[in-house]
Amino acid sequence: MAHLTSRVEYGIHCLLWLVGAGEQQPSSRDLAELQGISPSFLAKIFPRLEKAGIVAAVPGLRGGYRLARPAAQITVLDIVDAIEGDKPLFECQEIRTRCALFDDPPPRWASRGTCAIHATMQRAERAMRDALAAETLADLARALERKAPADFGASVERWLGERASSRRGSAR
Amino acid sequence: MAHLTSRVEYGIHCLLWLVGAGEQQPSSRDLAELQGISPSFLAKIFPRLEKAGIVAAVPGLRGGYRLARPAAQITVLDIVDAIEGDKPLFECQEIRTRCALFDDPPPRWASRGTCAIHATMQRAERAMRDALAAETLADLARALERKAPADFGASVERWLGERASSRRGSAR
Repeated sequence: MAHLTSRVEYGIHCLLWLVGAGEQQPSSRDLAELQGISPSFLAKIFPRLEKAGIVAAVPGLRGGYRLARPAAQITVLDIVDAIEGDKPLFECQEIRTRCALFDDPPPRWASRGTCAIHATMQRAERAMRDALAAETLADLARALERKAPADFGASVERWLGERASSRRGSAR
Repeated sequence: MAHLTSRVEYGIHCLLWLVGAGEQQPSSRDLAELQGISPSFLAKIFPRLEKAGIVAAVPGLRGGYRLARPAAQITVLDIVDAIEGDKPLFECQEIRTRCALFDDPPPRWASRGTCAIHATMQRAERAMRDALAAETLADLARALERKAPADFGASVERWLGERASSRRGSAR
């Protein structure tokens, strides 16, 4: 399994729709259907984003989700950490103390400081995290905007507006 | 599960014993027992290291493993790739083309170039790999050498020598 799962991929894609949602506050079902992914899968992701202060849930029939802070203040690392949780790249088992030449307990020098192998992995993880922290949701939204036709944003807003109206209608 | 598994951790620890093995060519069982880990687990790791040209198997009763090239020419990334194989940090499912607003087939602009989310993840992966490539087995061995008492290397060589002798003895 990849370290950054499809949960992250689906989460970021759907957060991008929130950047362009204008006045709309789509439900997680709306976002899933707009993106063509499983609504039940996405329904497990958005509460994590809410808990991390990335999105805010607006209650009520007209309610749904909005970004809790500007997209330029949401890094890809924030989203990954919110969705994947505290999952290290490498989990050191401290096997350095298990040498057949050691007594029990092993000598102090063998467990002093961080294991050099672990330290290398931590540097690699830090480099990965720094790269994810250097990119924001606003950067990704700009990349989408540059590619899409000029009227694409308006089409998305209209689609989300129609979904919101049909939600109100079906409750009558 | 962590991205870099205990296979990598066990593999690197045992490769470190080969750096200090002197004239000895320990078997993977010797290395596992010296390190206090499961011999059957390690026996699955060393063939991968051999296939990647990191260790060479010396056949015969006196045989075992030696490094196939100098430790300074073996990076941590080489070892990770040999053991974990081609396992990306992130697997893009190309869900960007699955928007409810698109026709079938989706518009060309939607799948042009690399998905911006995927590109961000690739940058993060590259940063991680660069950090792993910056460290060699020789660097790790020096870190161990700095910590250990001056006679530790000789003790390891002696232990491995006794194991090799008992192997020869038991075959008589």
